[in-house]
Formats: sequence, structure tokens, C-alpha cells
Amino acid sequence: MIKSRAAVAFEANKPLEIVEVDVAPPKEGEVLVRIVATGVCHTDAYTLSGADPEGIFPAILGHEGGGVVEAVGPGVTSVAVGDHVIPLYTPECGQCKFCLSGKTNLCQAIRATQGKGLMPDGTSRFSYKGQPIYHYMGTSTFSEYTVLPEISLAKIPKEAPLEKVCLLGCGVTTGIGAVLNTAKVEEGATVAIFGLGGIGLSAIIGATMAKAGRIIAIDINPSKFEIAKQLGATDCVNPNDYDKSIQDVIVELTDGGVDYSFECVGNVKLMRAALECCHKGWGESVIIGVAGAGQEISTRPFQLVTGRVWRGSAFGGVKGRTELPGYVDKAQKGEIPLDTFITHTMGLDQINEAFDLMHEGKSIRTVIHY
Amino acid sequence: MIKSRAAVAFEANKPLEIVEVDVAPPKEGEVLVRIVATGVCHTDAYTLSGADPEGIFPAILGHEGGGVVEAVGPGVTSVAVGDHVIPLYTPECGQCKFCLSGKTNLCQAIRATQGKGLMPDGTSRFSYKGQPIYHYMGTSTFSEYTVLPEISLAKIPKEAPLEKVCLLGCGVTTGIGAVLNTAKVEEGATVAIFGLGGIGLSAIIGATMAKAGRIIAIDINPSKFEIAKQLGATDCVNPNDYDKSIQDVIVELTDGGVDYSFECVGNVKLMRAALECCHKGWGESVIIGVAGAGQEISTRPFQLVTGRVWRGSAFGGVKGRTELPGYVDKAQKGEIPLDTFITHTMGLDQINEAFDLMHEGKSIRTVIHY
Repeated sequence: MIKSRAAVAFEANKPLEIVEVDVAPPKEGEVLVRIVATGVCHTDAYTLSGADPEGIFPAILGHEGGGVVEAVGPGVTSVAVGDHVIPLYTPECGQCKFCLSGKTNLCQAIRATQGKGLMPDGTSRFSYKGQPIYHYMGTSTFSEYTVLPEISLAKIPKEAPLEKVCLLGCGVTTGIGAVLNTAKVEEGATVAIFGLGGIGLSAIIGATMAKAGRIIAIDINPSKFEIAKQLGATDCVNPNDYDKSIQDVIVELTDGGVDYSFECVGNVKLMRAALECCHKGWGESVIIGVAGAGQEISTRPFQLVTGRVWRGSAFGGVKGRTELPGYVDKAQKGEIPLDTFITHTMGLDQINEAFDLMHEGKSIRTVIHY
Repeated sequence: MIKSRAAVAFEANKPLEIVEVDVAPPKEGEVLVRIVATGVCHTDAYTLSGADPEGIFPAILGHEGGGVVEAVGPGVTSVAVGDHVIPLYTPECGQCKFCLSGKTNLCQAIRATQGKGLMPDGTSRFSYKGQPIYHYMGTSTFSEYTVLPEISLAKIPKEAPLEKVCLLGCGVTTGIGAVLNTAKVEEGATVAIFGLGGIGLSAIIGATMAKAGRIIAIDINPSKFEIAKQLGATDCVNPNDYDKSIQDVIVELTDGGVDYSFECVGNVKLMRAALECCHKGWGESVIIGVAGAGQEISTRPFQLVTGRVWRGSAFGGVKGRTELPGYVDKAQKGEIPLDTFITHTMGLDQINEAFDLMHEGKSIRTVIHY
């Protein structure tokens, strides 16, 4: 049992509390990781707000981290003490029906326990004053020390700066992967990106990497447009500047609609707009944002019968253990400008400020340094 | 001007009237075709019912025909007098943005006028007692003589029996094409087909051609199950036999869901069920049926974010002029058992009986012989 500084969400919709928790040693197939840095993501805020129907408290949130292996449990072979790793909320066991399908990154090996805030054996490694604290998304990177299943760790080169590539543990990879893996955007394609938070900006990077011919960035906050352009957006559109629906605006702007669109907000009305601004015959829309509990998308089926395709993407369709190291490599080569995303850095003690900055739309990503 | 026996829909929701209409000669780029046989399809009934928002009266319905070229207008080069042809409600000009995209069969060259019941020059070739009668779907096969744009004709071998291959002009090609072209079902895949009318049964043929491992046929009318099995269905499911939702039934039956599903009815609730019975991570659902005006599909976006794909198919994604002759060839080789579909044949005078049989669920297809 070791002591670890952690930001604990004791209950929904309350600030995190910085306390010293107890972390039990890794069991079979598990790994103790010292987190060096972690991003603070909207999904953490969503769960903390109490709106997430799967949210459980008390828990240690955080899922966008980078760290160093401190100890391994029995049977662990793929990582060793001292290895640098990125925790994966989408594991990759390589053996389940999903991993073997070759069609998805959604490994289900530990889905049931992970969804309940527990390790695969059905227990927690965290406790505070003798009471168990739940894990979160299988990662719990808001603790200096955390325990993860071996299959939930991507090993990366030691040269990669953990306080930057931690962002590849969620948002940046999600946005880029949705463009490259899920939609498979081709050179010259016209792309619309709805919402210019971390995911949307990453989708712009993905579209730039895919050599899209036109990248239309859409947000009701025009202060996002400068960075969008810097990352490769060719057009910036504020829906509030028009009297007609945003789908009509985009269809007119593109002579019939876009080849690909991406919803990066989690707003079901915007998901519909993103589909309906796609070109008849072939336009594909990818939902990346996470909608509120119970909300539904809808459209006329004629939109699909006339050739549009509606799909979604989780973690950008990226397989964490086999494909994420390639993203780290791209970041190292400067192809993924992580620095652009890091608008703030701070210590764990200030983590509630990071949530405030995000809610106020003032940050892209705040990175917490332990 | 020639005289032609035709079944005219003078107004919505009234029986067709068999009268002698006047047919003007083909203009530039147009072709006069003598229809030898035509199927009667649910889409004809839908428009006749008055529910089709694009329905215009008086009109000559019919879009599933086979015929012989009787005369060609100036500039027509791809067909000649005596050629056997299948009229295409989805033309193929080979030159528009859509035809050139390589991504869709939805040629838009004459979409605007066709939707208004007119030839590309904005006029009709049909009249009765001096008053114009509208065309329908660019085909109007319920007239012994009809005029079509050259780009709306697929030339087929003279050996193919028109009174059978006429069915390839709509339903049979739509069902098979949705499986082979739109979904691209692979060998061994598990497939669910919702609705066992002409389209659904054709989708079973398509799934059999694709060597699907399991073909689940779903209908609330169990009298359809025998023919479904004859065509290759491995399981037949009647939703009324269960207390739970049909999506739950199919997910349980298939250990997680199907690889591909097809909605062949036009019921938006069934479209949702077809999507939600797809396997997490990769299942794809194809909407083929045409829903009532104003109706919408809906689901939780989580269904898509976790890897399901929602798409649609029109005329099976088949390009009429370049790909339909291949379907005729397959039918000639016995790979598409058209005889199974033809439950009734009759003369034009009895066409209202064909609609009655269809409404009563007693026919798969009635073929009208002129």
C-alpha cells in the first residue's frame, strides 16, 4: 500500500478535493503507474457534473495522462518498471471478439468492471480512510499513482515528453483518428467540423494531414477561428451570423454539401445538422461528441436513402496499444502540434481552476503537472 | 402522335382507369418504347394513395417495365429501333457530378423535371382528350407506349424474357444491390432482413449470393417464411412471438447483434430496430424502405459512437446503364430466381386487381402483360 496525492470527486457537482489516498499494489496482470502529467477533458467535467448516468462517486477522475511504470503485478510481460506509458480508457486485449474482428477498436475484455469503476477482479485499488474510492474509465489519472490493467497501457518511447503526449490519451487522438481512421477522408475532400474545442481542433489537424481540399470550421464562438485557421481551416463559419439553418449555409457554401462532417460537441441538434450538410450521394457524417443522457438524434430517412452515411467514432477508432505509439511518433516529428493545445499548465492543487477555465471556454487544454 | 392503351391515375386514391392516351413522338435525346410487361410495385401504390408528397395527377404510373425500342428522337445513339430495354427511374447520364463521382448511382441530370412528372424539356408526351397527363418516375410503364430520355434506358440482350426481367427495373435489383453494392456483405456474415416483400426477399437472394453465413428473415406475416427459407433464409423470426423488442430478440439470437441489417418496409420504428440489432463495433444497417411523408428516424447517438453505421440505398446502388445488364445476365444464368417473385400475371385491364392483391399481402409481384 502506498500513499498518493489525488484529486478525489467525493460527490457529483462539487469541487474535487486534494487528499492523500491509499493505493494497493498491482494484482495479476496489473500495473502501478506514476502519473507525470494529465489533461483535463470535458468528459471528466461531464461525469463530475452528475449528468453521466454511469458516473459513480467517490471516484478519482482523469483519463488523459502520461506516466512511468513503477511496479508490475504477476504475469505482466508487455511493460516493465521504468517504461513510459499512456493509460488507455479503451484497452486492447488482442484476444476478444472485438479485437479479433479487425473492424473496431472497442475492446470489450474489461468493459463490465471498468464501467462500474472497478478493476477486472471486481475491486478497487484506491481507498481513503479505509473506504474504497472508485476508479474512472479504467485510468484515474487525477492520482499521482494509479493502477491499470496491463491491456490498458500503451508503451511509448522515453524521449516523448509525457507532459505533452498525455493529450494523445484522449482528445487529440480522438479528433485526428475520427478523420483518418473512421471517415478515411481522402485528399481533396471537403470537410465540415462542428465545434472547435480540443476534439474539433484535432479533427482540423486530421483533415490537414489527410490533405483535405477544404476544411470548414464551425463554432458560435468566433474567438476560436484564429487557431482553427492556424491549424488548417480554410473557412470559418459562425451559425449566429445567418438567418437560415447551418446545414443550409454549408450546403450553399459547398455547392451541394460536404464530403465529410464531424460533430465534436455532443449536441444532438448539431449532429443532425452535420448529417444534413453532407453531400447527397456520398457525404458521411461522424459523431464524436457525447450527448447528454437520454438524448436522441433524428432525421428524415430520405437523408440516408439518398446516399448520406451516419456513423460515430470512439477514441478515433484508434487501437491504443498497436496504433497510439504511431501518434506519439507523429507528435515527435511535429506533425501533431500538441503545444497549440496546451493553453495552461498547473499543479494538481489547482485542478478545480482547470475545470473553471474549461467551463468558461478560456482553455483548450490545461495540463496538470504532478 | 400515336394511340396507346394506358392505366391512368386521374386522381389520388381512386382506381386506375384504362383509356387510350395520345403519345407524342420522341424529341431530341428521347426514345419511344413499347412496354411488353411491367411489375406493379408498392411505390406505385404509395403514390396512388395520395400519401406521396411528390405525387402529381393525372399521371401514368409504373416503373418496373421491360420493352422494345419503337422509335428514337434526334441525337439518340446508344439504342436503336428493335433493342430491348429496361426503363430506369434512376438514369445514368455518365457526365454529371454524381455519375462522375464514382461514389453513387444517383444521377441528377434530369432530377428536377422528372420529379415534376415532365420530360427534360419541361413538357409531357402524354395527353388524353387534349389535356396533358404527367409522366411518373421518368418511366410510366403503365402505358403500352411510353417515351423516355435515352439516359433512362438500360439496353439488355434480346434473349432475356422481358416479362420476367422487367422486375429487375426496381424491386429485385434494389434488394440484391443493397446487399452487394451498398452494404458489401462479406462471406460468412450474419444478416437480418426486416420485411419479406419483394425487396426483402430480393435482399435474401443478395445475401445468399454474398455467401452470408446466417440470414435472419423477419416479418409479422409468417406465411412469408416458406419462400424466405427457399431463397436462403436460415432463421425466420416473427416479432409478435416475443414479449421483448425485436432488436433485443435479434441481439440475443446472434450473441451481440448482426453484421448487417436491411429495412425493407418503410417503417421508421423498424428502421430503428434494424440499426439497434446491429453488432456493437461494426454492424451496419441499410434503409431501403420508403417512409411516409414527414416521418423521422431516431436513436441514441451512442449507438453510432459505439461503432454502428446507418446508411441507405436507392435502386440498390446500381448504375442502371452500366450495371443492370449484369443483373439480367445473372437472372439468365439462374442466379436470380425471378420466377419465384411472379405470383400473378394478368392483362392491363385487370391492373386494379394487382393493387388489391398487393394490399392484401397475397402477391409478391403481379406482372402485367400488354
